[in-house]
Amino acid sequence: MKKEIRIGLIGCGFMGRTHSNGYRRVPNFFPELVYQPVLKAVCARSREKVTAFAQQWGYESFETDWKLLIKRDDIDAIDICTPNNMHAEIAIAAAEAGKMILCEKPLARTLAEAQLMVDAVDKAKVKNTVWYNYRRLPAVTLAKKIVDTGKLGKIFHYRSNFLQDWTINENLPQGGSVFWRMDADAAGSGVTGDLLAHCIDTAMWLNGGIRDVSAVTETFVKQRLHEDTGKLQDVKIDDACIFHCHFENGSLGLFESTRFARGHKALYTFEINGEKGSLRWDLHDLNRLEYFNNEDDAATRGWRSIHVTDGDQPYMNKWWVPGLSIGYEHSFVHQVADFLKSLESGEACAPTFQDAFETQKVCEAVLNSASSKKWQTTDVNWKTHAG
Amino acid sequence: MKKEIRIGLIGCGFMGRTHSNGYRRVPNFFPELVYQPVLKAVCARSREKVTAFAQQWGYESFETDWKLLIKRDDIDAIDICTPNNMHAEIAIAAAEAGKMILCEKPLARTLAEAQLMVDAVDKAKVKNTVWYNYRRLPAVTLAKKIVDTGKLGKIFHYRSNFLQDWTINENLPQGGSVFWRMDADAAGSGVTGDLLAHCIDTAMWLNGGIRDVSAVTETFVKQRLHEDTGKLQDVKIDDACIFHCHFENGSLGLFESTRFARGHKALYTFEINGEKGSLRWDLHDLNRLEYFNNEDDAATRGWRSIHVTDGDQPYMNKWWVPGLSIGYEHSFVHQVADFLKSLESGEACAPTFQDAFETQKVCEAVLNSASSKKWQTTDVNWKTHAG
Amino acid sequence: MKKEIRIGLIGCGFMGRTHSNGYRRVPNFFPELVYQPVLKAVCARSREKVTAFAQQWGYESFETDWKLLIKRDDIDAIDICTPNNMHAEIAIAAAEAGKMILCEKPLARTLAEAQLMVDAVDKAKVKNTVWYNYRRLPAVTLAKKIVDTGKLGKIFHYRSNFLQDWTINENLPQGGSVFWRMDADAAGSGVTGDLLAHCIDTAMWLNGGIRDVSAVTETFVKQRLHEDTGKLQDVKIDDACIFHCHFENGSLGLFESTRFARGHKALYTFEINGEKGSLRWDLHDLNRLEYFNNEDDAATRGWRSIHVTDGDQPYMNKWWVPGLSIGYEHSFVHQVADFLKSLESGEACAPTFQDAFETQKVCEAVLNSASSKKWQTTDVNWKTHAG
Amino acid sequence: MKKEIRIGLIGCGFMGRTHSNGYRRVPNFFPELVYQPVLKAVCARSREKVTAFAQQWGYESFETDWKLLIKRDDIDAIDICTPNNMHAEIAIAAAEAGKMILCEKPLARTLAEAQLMVDAVDKAKVKNTVWYNYRRLPAVTLAKKIVDTGKLGKIFHYRSNFLQDWTINENLPQGGSVFWRMDADAAGSGVTGDLLAHCIDTAMWLNGGIRDVSAVTETFVKQRLHEDTGKLQDVKIDDACIFHCHFENGSLGLFESTRFARGHKALYTFEINGEKGSLRWDLHDLNRLEYFNNEDDAATRGWRSIHVTDGDQPYMNKWWVPGLSIGYEHSFVHQVADFLKSLESGEACAPTFQDAFETQKVCEAVLNSASSKKWQTTDVNWKTHAG
Repeated sequence: MKKEIRIGLIGCGFMGRTHSNGYRRVPNFFPELVYQPVLKAVCARSREKVTAFAQQWGYESFETDWKLLIKRDDIDAIDICTPNNMHAEIAIAAAEAGKMILCEKPLARTLAEAQLMVDAVDKAKVKNTVWYNYRRLPAVTLAKKIVDTGKLGKIFHYRSNFLQDWTINENLPQGGSVFWRMDADAAGSGVTGDLLAHCIDTAMWLNGGIRDVSAVTETFVKQRLHEDTGKLQDVKIDDACIFHCHFENGSLGLFESTRFARGHKALYTFEINGEKGSLRWDLHDLNRLEYFNNEDDAATRGWRSIHVTDGDQPYMNKWWVPGLSIGYEHSFVHQVADFLKSLESGEACAPTFQDAFETQKVCEAVLNSASSKKWQTTDVNWKTHAG
Repeated sequence: MKKEIRIGLIGCGFMGRTHSNGYRRVPNFFPELVYQPVLKAVCARSREKVTAFAQQWGYESFETDWKLLIKRDDIDAIDICTPNNMHAEIAIAAAEAGKMILCEKPLARTLAEAQLMVDAVDKAKVKNTVWYNYRRLPAVTLAKKIVDTGKLGKIFHYRSNFLQDWTINENLPQGGSVFWRMDADAAGSGVTGDLLAHCIDTAMWLNGGIRDVSAVTETFVKQRLHEDTGKLQDVKIDDACIFHCHFENGSLGLFESTRFARGHKALYTFEINGEKGSLRWDLHDLNRLEYFNNEDDAATRGWRSIHVTDGDQPYMNKWWVPGLSIGYEHSFVHQVADFLKSLESGEACAPTFQDAFETQKVCEAVLNSASSKKWQTTDVNWKTHAG
Repeated sequence: MKKEIRIGLIGCGFMGRTHSNGYRRVPNFFPELVYQPVLKAVCARSREKVTAFAQQWGYESFETDWKLLIKRDDIDAIDICTPNNMHAEIAIAAAEAGKMILCEKPLARTLAEAQLMVDAVDKAKVKNTVWYNYRRLPAVTLAKKIVDTGKLGKIFHYRSNFLQDWTINENLPQGGSVFWRMDADAAGSGVTGDLLAHCIDTAMWLNGGIRDVSAVTETFVKQRLHEDTGKLQDVKIDDACIFHCHFENGSLGLFESTRFARGHKALYTFEINGEKGSLRWDLHDLNRLEYFNNEDDAATRGWRSIHVTDGDQPYMNKWWVPGLSIGYEHSFVHQVADFLKSLESGEACAPTFQDAFETQKVCEAVLNSASSKKWQTTDVNWKTHAG
Repeated sequence: MKKEIRIGLIGCGFMGRTHSNGYRRVPNFFPELVYQPVLKAVCARSREKVTAFAQQWGYESFETDWKLLIKRDDIDAIDICTPNNMHAEIAIAAAEAGKMILCEKPLARTLAEAQLMVDAVDKAKVKNTVWYNYRRLPAVTLAKKIVDTGKLGKIFHYRSNFLQDWTINENLPQGGSVFWRMDADAAGSGVTGDLLAHCIDTAMWLNGGIRDVSAVTETFVKQRLHEDTGKLQDVKIDDACIFHCHFENGSLGLFESTRFARGHKALYTFEINGEKGSLRWDLHDLNRLEYFNNEDDAATRGWRSIHVTDGDQPYMNKWWVPGLSIGYEHSFVHQVADFLKSLESGEACAPTFQDAFETQKVCEAVLNSASSKKWQTTDVNWKTHAG
């Protein structure tokens, strides 16, 4: 007997599209799930935009005021795809209204905001999850499986970066509905919350808690036109951020993110080096995982390029046949599916608000370290809060 | 004003899934199209299978007899996803019933069958297209655009292969609903019709007609259990096929396909070498096109690895943002979209039955060359029959 | 107690340089060898060239007439680096004079010439070897070791190509001392003897005899200025050659060579696919061997990129430390070392004239097949004639 | 008229071999140079080792006391290949004796030692250079040429790492003649002086001075048997070192080095990102340089993989033909050739002691930052002291 989960989506930008696609694909590719999503309503301030979006994605209805959406009885789960400055207010209200919450990352602009959100879902005891979608790419999930077997042995190094080049043009503005990621008020931070947060979530999932950090940030373009004011204003976000750190397990970490690395569009990579083996991955070629197994015969040992498309790989029995690639968007489909499965099992769906709060601690420590030019401890208590 | 194209799909195997997904994605990603598909009915012999399939993919109804499907007034277009031995009979009947036809490749088992199909659509003047889907991957479409600019200059070489390894296991059977590709009665041929047909379609699209061929085939496993008879029977398909050829433009061609190349799942590649530049592509990394431009400055000349994901690349403004990959399945979405656009424009939708018939000529010449051990002319008259 | 092998080198072009470098490096990197080369004399027709060459490479003396060189008592071994049209005459004379012979590949222009050369060394019982140098690159030698263990299982496919682009320019001449490779009288053939001969030597070394072939050749530029006559003359060499074949072990082979593949300088590659594993290699990245081992755990199976630089890899204990690359020229150093070792052991040094004669049979069958447009048997009796 | 430079080499370990090979290759590959090296004497404490080495490499004589070597009138240049703890004493004595000095990197164990060395050569006005050999690999030299044209525009990022895995085994000792790099007394530091010094030299050559640094180091194996004492002793070197920094030009830098990155043998890479273009390079594939030119046409823009082997590339007209790789050792041959050329021109040969002293400042600041856990300024005054 199928059960409906009635979704109310807030925000119809880029993430609104990726999530909507996630919901729409699940019935076709995960038909066995007991819980299936229903696109009940979408909400955005612009009536024109929201009606077009509802039409395109097949939402049954729409709202232009998110508070009305949250009040509706026919909505089970609120999906938050707004700019970051709205996450906390909406999430807290949704929790109080007893809704399940799926919140786009980063959880919040600041640790303080994030704390309020965690408190709200804890108090309301509502199901919650955060869209750190990259965990659900099959190659990344395979990395997790390999790490968890202990095949890599004691870990010495973890490194990760997320390199883009889309804001090099100094004529790009900040603010407004398109460029809010460049506006510190809306976004909280620049690449730290936008890109490094992904790197940190994956890193702690694979390699455990980050203990302390030493960071540097840079804003290469000092002033940009603000779309809301029409004036040239100081840019307060970080265009680039680098940090090194210690993990709880004694390994050294190294992270870098920027929007000023010419030639890289979305070069999200990670690498982990252990005593017995190493792994590395690159979002630009997301179906591949590279694995070095030091226990292979010495003469024929080398980095293995695993094309993670066989049916026995994570999620891949749902898709096509060996050798045929899936893409970026599939990470969201998998996240929806895992969320729905968690409703069956009653377990939490990682990363929860609490998990994302731990990631937020690292982001905050990073930004603090960059401004203070000192090492910062994170007080991370990494222990995934999902089953 | 939107118009519906009511689809009747026959066959619910692997290709039934890829096509259904194509239809379902179009309204979300190509909402501007006047014609939009409606999944009216799916047909398969097994009532159990077809009802599950209809449920999973959202078909409004189902049939277990394709003849009944074709008779229905509420169907505009018949999509043929059956084993190859049913293509001709269904297509001819559909044409006679005045239906549009979208036929899975290869068009037919033999050139004679294909001829009857072309005659039928010509006579009935019904819209027709064949699912040589790889043309619609953005990197492949970009290759076509580059070739058409003349940037490569006079062409000297074209090479392509399609390497798999899934039939090395000699205990794999032939026949039945799963392994019909191993049964010459159902499939017509082995890798020639299944894999090389793709290579040939892309090759003639990019580089023009193939004039003559010299081929060799091999069947490594001589006998396999037949699922229909329960007996060990001679394998009559080609496990591997290699041929070289002349193109009309004077370039040399080289093609290879096999299901016995250990380590390759779906290594479909092509490369074209011209006086001024070269291109190469690989399905395993389908978002990339490699381009060598001999007119670049000598000191910094090298193969460019183009990650074909920017919004100004073919089809990519419909998807995500630069750097974010799409997958195999998107080729089918694009083909549906192009088919629907062709209804607006009134132009043919390449490759048409006639185009696929020309590809079939090459396949037949290849098989004849392999059995006769002689060069064969193809009589190809390559001129895409779409606008 | 060290023993000297006094070398007399004939020809001071490109190959004269690679061989001379081979001799000069051996004392530094293989000091343990009992036999050590002494650069006794170099011979070329131009006194100016030969004296400069002797000076540069440290030859003790020079000759301008090879017949005089062969008569000298102070020469133990004749190294033939002339254009191909001189190989037979010199080798036969050298054999008659009782000299050891190291002959650059291909052995001869034609099978008939090659036969005379084999007869001569057989009759004279002189040590002989042919410079198919690529066997001695560590990654290629490692491939041989892996094949010989049987780790690949039954072989299904072998493919190899050698792609260049240096003769696309139609103003390049033929003939003379620089462009003799473009002149059929001097070279015997074009890419078949120059490039495919390498591919064939490696192929038969790794995968055994080639039984029959079907080939096509092309000459893209029909006439070029001849340096000797100053006139525009028909080009009689093959600019490109493709063939497929059967190996004795039942596997299918596929070979291609051209000087018209824009963007490729010396793309010599091979790949071998067996039931249990596959290997591939590329001269452009010559320190790497790729290996797919189907017996690896399914979830982590992938092509291994082996950087063949560890001290336990073939020849590598002679060079630097792990990770540090060697280059093209080292193949010649290794060949010299192996030749000198064979003097100690008394074994033949592969490939011998007889081995190269078998390769010549395939070349000749390929050219005959191309001109006759028919399959040709090779009559190869592959059995390396070295210990 | 040729002139001799009589070399006296001290130390016959790994670097003694690479330098000796450099000297021996120059006459064959750079015969046009007026100054040519003569291997006059080699010096090492062990008579057995030094005589074998002299024999192998063709040194005319040997010494077992470096002070005697320096006194010899028949020596023009002293090449220092000892462990780092001997650099200063030998260099100062050699300068006082009026010898030219070629010193292996890093210049010294500490900045204080390095200062004394710079003072000594300044006072004595003797020719001096330091073996930061990687600058002379053609792909790296090409990177310098591209940077110097301004083609990359304003620089935003520089990143570099040098990853190895050879000391993971905790049973590896420290000290002695083989493992002196693990002994802080002999080496000064661990990966910082051994590996990062290379990265820093190349970085400042390409991107200018490093202003300040923030670093972290780690020693994963806390105690190792000391070969000299036979006792388990604390390991005082850094097994790993990471730092970020600001360059004078405002770009951010990121450096990492370790001997605990399983699967990497000598993964020395750098990448530089500018407004208009980017470059990256990897020692494992040392003949390639990757270049992204943002001014290429948008549709066909991609990272170019330049196989730096054409004759018009740096140094490559001395070697073979396009497509044929050279190796690690060639960097030393080129450094010898450039040193000899600088004798003709009278210019300094970069990097000079003064240049290497600036690199030493960064190394020292890095180690100080790691121990103090604070940012450190470097006081680098980067201005190459060679013409």
